Amino acid sequence: MFCAIATGAVRASRTAIVTGFTGFTMTPRKFEPRHESYESRVHGSFARQRAMNTIGARIVRVEPGEVELELPFREDLTQQHGFLHAGIVTALVDSACGYAALSLMDRESAVLSVEYKVNLLAPAVGERMRAIGRVIKPGRTLLVCTGEVIAVAGGAESVVTVMQATMMAVRGRPELVD
Amino acid sequence: MFCAIATGAVRASRTAIVTGFTGFTMTPRKFEPRHESYESRVHGSFARQRAMNTIGARIVRVEPGEVELELPFREDLTQQHGFLHAGIVTALVDSACGYAALSLMDRESAVLSVEYKVNLLAPAVGERMRAIGRVIKPGRTLLVCTGEVIAVAGGAESVVTVMQATMMAVRGRPELVD
Amino acid sequence: MFCAIATGAVRASRTAIVTGFTGFTMTPRKFEPRHESYESRVHGSFARQRAMNTIGARIVRVEPGEVELELPFREDLTQQHGFLHAGIVTALVDSACGYAALSLMDRESAVLSVEYKVNLLAPAVGERMRAIGRVIKPGRTLLVCTGEVIAVAGGAESVVTVMQATMMAVRGRPELVD
Amino acid sequence: MFCAIATGAVRASRTAIVTGFTGFTMTPRKFEPRHESYESRVHGSFARQRAMNTIGARIVRVEPGEVELELPFREDLTQQHGFLHAGIVTALVDSACGYAALSLMDRESAVLSVEYKVNLLAPAVGERMRAIGRVIKPGRTLLVCTGEVIAVAGGAESVVTVMQATMMAVRGRPELVD
Repeated sequence: MFCAIATGAVRASRTAIVTGFTGFTMTPRKFEPRHESYESRVHGSFARQRAMNTIGARIVRVEPGEVELELPFREDLTQQHGFLHAGIVTALVDSACGYAALSLMDRESAVLSVEYKVNLLAPAVGERMRAIGRVIKPGRTLLVCTGEVIAVAGGAESVVTVMQATMMAVRGRPELVD
Repeated sequence: MFCAIATGAVRASRTAIVTGFTGFTMTPRKFEPRHESYESRVHGSFARQRAMNTIGARIVRVEPGEVELELPFREDLTQQHGFLHAGIVTALVDSACGYAALSLMDRESAVLSVEYKVNLLAPAVGERMRAIGRVIKPGRTLLVCTGEVIAVAGGAESVVTVMQATMMAVRGRPELVD
Repeated sequence: MFCAIATGAVRASRTAIVTGFTGFTMTPRKFEPRHESYESRVHGSFARQRAMNTIGARIVRVEPGEVELELPFREDLTQQHGFLHAGIVTALVDSACGYAALSLMDRESAVLSVEYKVNLLAPAVGERMRAIGRVIKPGRTLLVCTGEVIAVAGGAESVVTVMQATMMAVRGRPELVD
Repeated sequence: MFCAIATGAVRASRTAIVTGFTGFTMTPRKFEPRHESYESRVHGSFARQRAMNTIGARIVRVEPGEVELELPFREDLTQQHGFLHAGIVTALVDSACGYAALSLMDRESAVLSVEYKVNLLAPAVGERMRAIGRVIKPGRTLLVCTGEVIAVAGGAESVVTVMQATMMAVRGRPELVD
C-alpha cells in the first residue's frame, strides 16, 4: 500500500521540497495561494469557530500554508494537575493546521480534519501558548500538516506538543463552504 | 524495534485476551482494580479537571479499565460549520481514556497522556456525545487505550470519532498525585 | 475542524453501527460488496504485492470489509532482540487493512494507504502472526480501518499490535487500478 | 490529561529547543551522548536486526539523537503498483528513529518502539530511500522522535513519508540489552 496524494493543487515556488522536523535536510517550502483573499477567508472562518472564541484563542499570523494562533493560559481550561488540558491544546493546534490547509485551497473547497496524532512532550503551562500549523504536502484532496504548540513562560519558549495531521478539501457541499 | 510493555501491573480475570475493534475475534477483557477506591478516585480527579467542567462534561460510568463520559451539545463549542470542534471531542475522549487508565493504577501513580491519534469519522452533531475509553493493554508504566465518541441524535447513535491512545503511570512525583 | 467523510459508497445491511474496540457498545457492522468479484480482486492484487511474497505472508480470509492475513515467524525478519521487526508486522496489518478497504470499493478505484498509527503492545513472537484488518467507516473517498495482529504461540493467542488507518479510493488513475 | 516526560536523561548543549517540522521557529537542538560508545552500539545493534539485512538497508550516519539509514529500491519489496510497500518504508524509518533514540540512552537501557504514526505523502519510488530519524524529546523513559523518508530519483530528492514516534528506554531486562 502507498499513498500518492494527487498534487497540482498548489503552485509552489520552492527551490527544494520541504523536509523533516527541524528541517535538518532541506530548506522550507514556500507556497503561493490560489486566490488573493486567502487571508481574509481564514480570518472569516476562524471568527465562526465559536469554540476558539470560547477558549480565548486568536489568530496571530496567516501566511500561505502556515497559520499561527495564540491562547492565553486560563485556569478554567486545565486538567487535574493545573496544566492546560491536552484536548484544549489539541483544539488549538488542530485549528492552526486546518487553517494552514484552508489558506492553500481554492474558493470552492471547505476544510475538514480527517485525523491527527499528537505527542504531548511537556506540561502546557506558561502565560500563553503559540500554536503553529504548517502544510507539508498540499494535495488536491488531502493536505498533510505538521503542528507544534510552544509554551511561553517568563520569556522562555519550549515546545510542549507536536501534531501530524491530515486535512481534507471538501467540494460540492455548499453547506460547508468556509 | 518492538515494544514489550511490562505487564503484571493488573491482575486480569479475563478468560481471553482483548482483541480488535468490534471484538470480532475474542471476548472482551475484564480487569480487577488494584484498590477499592478506584471509582471515587476517578470521580475526585475528574472534578478537578476544570476544562471538563467548563465544557459541561460529566461522568456517566466508571468500571475497572473503562470509563464513559457525556457531553451535551453546545453551540459555543462548535467549529465553523456548526459541528462540535474536533478538539473538544478529543478532549472528551482523552479524559475518558485517561480515567480508564487511572482506574487500573495503584494509589502512588498519577495519569498523564503520552500521545493519541483520532480519526474523525462523521460530524459531531446531535443532542449529546457519549465518550467511552477502554484500556486494552495495562502495562505497569504505559497503558494503551482505545476510545470512541458516539453522537446521540433523535434516539439514534453513531460513532463519530475513534481514538488510539497511550497513557502513562507517573510515580515519584507527589505534586501530580491524582 | 471536523471530517464528514462522504458516505453512500457502500450499502450496509447492518442493524447497528460499528463501535469501539472490542465492540463493547454495539454489534459489529456487516457490509455488502459493490460487485461480485471483490474476493478475486483482493486475491489478484495481493498476489502482485511482491513484498508480501518476500516476507512469506498469505491470505487466510476475505470478507466484505474484513481481511485476514497470516505470516509464519521467520528469523530473517527479526529486530535486534529476536522479535519480528515492528515494520514487518506493520506491513502485514497495513496490507490487511488496505485489502479490507479494497473489498468494498467499486471496480474503478485503486487502494492506497494515506496514513496509519500502530501501538506495539507486546513482542511479536510465536509460530505465526494473524493480521486482521476491518473497515469501520466506508466513505466514498476515504475508508477508515482498524487492524490487529495476533501472535499464535503454543496454541495461545495474544494481540501484539493494533492499528488505526486511513485508506483512499483513488479514481481516474488507470495505472493504479488494482 | 497531559504528559510530562521526565527529562534530565540527556545533557543538551542547545541554545534553543527543537521545534516543528522544517524548523520554522527555532534552531535545531544538539544532544550530547551519555557515553562514548554510542555510535558503535548503534552499529552493533543494527547488525543484529536481521530484517534490515534482509531488505538490504544500511547505516549511513550516526550522530547523537539522529540516525540516517539507506535502502536501495528492490522490486521484491513492492506493493501492487510497483512502489516500495508502505510497511517496508515504515520498517526503515522505525529503525532510524529507534536508533536515534538508542544513541542517547545509557548503557543499561534497551530501545523498544512504543508506537508510531506515518503519513505516506507520495509513492516510494526511485533508486534508493534515505530515512532520517531524529529525537525531539529525550525523556528518561520515553523519547519522542520524528522521521522522514526521502526518495532519491535521478538526482532529485523528495520526502515520501513522515513519522512521529515514541520510543522507550527499557531497563532491568538483561535479555533485551542492545
